[in-house]
Amino acid sequence: MASDEFDIIRRHFNQKGLAFAKSSVMLGIGDDCALLAADSSQQLAISMDLLQEGVHFLSDADPFLLGQRTLLVNLSDLAAMGAEPLCFTLGVSIPKADELWLERFSAGLAVVAQAHDCPLVGGDLTAAHPEHGTITLCVQVHGQRPAGAGMLRSGARPGDLVYVTGTLGDAAAGLAVLQGRLPVGASPARDGFSPESIAGRPAPTEFEAALISAFYQPESRVACGMALRGLASAAIDISDGLASDLGHILRGSGVSAAIDTEALPTSAAFRALVPEAARLSLVLGGGDDYELCFTVSNDDVPQLERQLSATGTAATCIGRIESGSGPIRWLSKGEEIALQVQGYNHFAPQQLTQERT
Amino acid sequence: MASDEFDIIRRHFNQKGLAFAKSSVMLGIGDDCALLAADSSQQLAISMDLLQEGVHFLSDADPFLLGQRTLLVNLSDLAAMGAEPLCFTLGVSIPKADELWLERFSAGLAVVAQAHDCPLVGGDLTAAHPEHGTITLCVQVHGQRPAGAGMLRSGARPGDLVYVTGTLGDAAAGLAVLQGRLPVGASPARDGFSPESIAGRPAPTEFEAALISAFYQPESRVACGMALRGLASAAIDISDGLASDLGHILRGSGVSAAIDTEALPTSAAFRALVPEAARLSLVLGGGDDYELCFTVSNDDVPQLERQLSATGTAATCIGRIESGSGPIRWLSKGEEIALQVQGYNHFAPQQLTQERT
Repeated sequence: MASDEFDIIRRHFNQKGLAFAKSSVMLGIGDDCALLAADSSQQLAISMDLLQEGVHFLSDADPFLLGQRTLLVNLSDLAAMGAEPLCFTLGVSIPKADELWLERFSAGLAVVAQAHDCPLVGGDLTAAHPEHGTITLCVQVHGQRPAGAGMLRSGARPGDLVYVTGTLGDAAAGLAVLQGRLPVGASPARDGFSPESIAGRPAPTEFEAALISAFYQPESRVACGMALRGLASAAIDISDGLASDLGHILRGSGVSAAIDTEALPTSAAFRALVPEAARLSLVLGGGDDYELCFTVSNDDVPQLERQLSATGTAATCIGRIESGSGPIRWLSKGEEIALQVQGYNHFAPQQLTQERT
Repeated sequence: MASDEFDIIRRHFNQKGLAFAKSSVMLGIGDDCALLAADSSQQLAISMDLLQEGVHFLSDADPFLLGQRTLLVNLSDLAAMGAEPLCFTLGVSIPKADELWLERFSAGLAVVAQAHDCPLVGGDLTAAHPEHGTITLCVQVHGQRPAGAGMLRSGARPGDLVYVTGTLGDAAAGLAVLQGRLPVGASPARDGFSPESIAGRPAPTEFEAALISAFYQPESRVACGMALRGLASAAIDISDGLASDLGHILRGSGVSAAIDTEALPTSAAFRALVPEAARLSLVLGGGDDYELCFTVSNDDVPQLERQLSATGTAATCIGRIESGSGPIRWLSKGEEIALQVQGYNHFAPQQLTQERT
């Protein structure tokens, strides 16, 4: 069956599970623009992410899981600003109109869109080169937050405590499982990437499945982010690794930090599968965590604990903001240790080929 | 010099010519989200376009012209809704950090951004696959319009007059010049695509340059679009060709139309270079015009003429909306003629290879 882009949009994207009605969306998919109602008491928060096959996701990624991940990682940017999701737009470029892929991908998107009342309101669908083209996804999320919500990268002050939500390193370890690099000694599998079917290998264990799930279905921190409004002096979501992303807060705020490496939270699955020597590099530089890193004044800790408890969020204090502009001081048992940690750099080819393809 | 994405963003995108300050932009590039002030009296209009090397633009396109075109074709969607440009976001995926390309591309963007007071406020920069990756651009434009501005695709009523701005077919003819398919008899040139340097061929004539310019620097219809608020019963921008895009209005409004093929406006350059037998297909199905097609009630024609005159926009009445839901009736000297016109279909591979690579 021949498809044109309008058919594909109608069948897979402009459907009620995904492009559902919302009172603040005056006009959704189907015109030159979508139209949103504006609210003068709110700021509009927007964030765009571009995701590419072979760079940001594996070529044989289960499209249902990929759909979930695509929207979740973008909602993470709203969470880091304390914004409530409003709607999203989506650009998709695909080499061919693969109906099954489109159906599964849009179903994955719909699960997350519905969970966050964040409908699809517009976008663009184009054909990549039919022979050597790859899949490109571009998502822009739109959210709202009251003025004065703070949480900018520039707001951290000396003495503030540094927190992270959840656990770190799980997603990077999950990607290593998918690529057959974990558990150590497993036969590398290049082609099967869903938790259900890692080609040529036994079914994943519970621990392996937990790490894979952390990669594809990162915990949403939207409710936690909204609870941090006016409370977190600075916040960021951890996409390139804690060392790199905390570094953005430090540079933005003109401060430094001391981080207790023993306080860094990890999961039981992570500790079971990742050899001890490799842990710190995944925890600090693995990326794809999509947890929040935020800073809070010491005086606000009681209120923070109430808010975290109210939203059911686990968060761990990992250190303290210091004055000065030096690099992060990494501590172990109270002593400073030397660490070389690099976040993900998109223009370092060796990383692209070793880590991401 | 090694670059990471933060260096590239700082040097080429987060610079004052492009990411300039604007009162309604509370926070621009550099945090998890950009923050925009909202105005309850306005609707926010948003539109996203994905543009791919080899599909939407030629691989050796002059990056300065490409930058202009990238933003102009998106502003055209705001124009079609009568929205005033507010700001834009940009996703860029490139195989390597080509400093000269980035500098020229961002300079082209800046020319259009400044002309429309539409600063860059955020986005994403990623590496495409270093070997077989191609350039992908994703732009989302944001604009504002008062509620009740109309101009939806669903608003055309039987008896309304159909207008187009400017002239049609120039951009498609310009692309043919760039590809060496025009003028007829020219030696095909596959590689040089700027007006200054069409490799292996003499400098373009004035007519050739005019058509190339229509492709890379389509006339902005933003001011015209704003002047049509509350006046045009329906509007659309012509990106896939008049036949296809007027078709969207007709289906959206549940009406048909009779179009006088002799009234379709063409330029002197177009008529000089395009053989008569090929003209109608470029005018109706060539695409890339980025002119507005809109409908107006007969009673509003005097007001329309005042508004067009005030904004210095040339627009031509090309036909009339009719009741019913049949295909467009094409007229020549008052008689209906049979025409097979197809707009650009992204998932028809023969078009991709013949027309767009």
